[in-house]
Amino acid sequence: MYVILVYDIEEKRVGKMLKLCRRYLNRVQNSVFEGELTDVKLQELLHEAKAIMQIEKDSIIVFKSRQEKWLEKMVVGKEKNELDNML
Amino acid sequence: MYVILVYDIEEKRVGKMLKLCRRYLNRVQNSVFEGELTDVKLQELLHEAKAIMQIEKDSIIVFKSRQEKWLEKMVVGKEKNELDNML
Repeated sequence: MYVILVYDIEEKRVGKMLKLCRRYLNRVQNSVFEGELTDVKLQELLHEAKAIMQIEKDSIIVFKSRQEKWLEKMVVGKEKNELDNML
Repeated sequence: MYVILVYDIEEKRVGKMLKLCRRYLNRVQNSVFEGELTDVKLQELLHEAKAIMQIEKDSIIVFKSRQEKWLEKMVVGKEKNELDNML
């Protein structure tokens, strides 16, 4: 399953959330992540996320697509490629 | 065509970008928008966006899906519903 995850988390909690999301997905913009995840892994991620979030203040939206090819991605402007930083 | 648009724009330009994106799409999170757009309308939006952006600092990512039903959306936490504010 292909997943896009976007979050809007208050600053004091955002570091933890970033670390969590990076464990499961690739970061493509400041608060946007994408990648292939099984349903079980996604549930695991969201379970951990809920433990970090304040549900009435923070927000996560997940878009799921059965296949990556059903989604076309376009980037305008600065591209975030975390692999670059690691090389 | 179903479109998800996420932006990461420096603060001084973000107001203009917000206003632009709202003209074409529904805001579902602080910097996340979605909606049905034709290819022509999307090109129009991106053309206007490029005039606002500083290409080496700001970023827009667009995910396109031929059909909305190919995408499943889940919201965890606070839900942004701008219609609520308008009613």
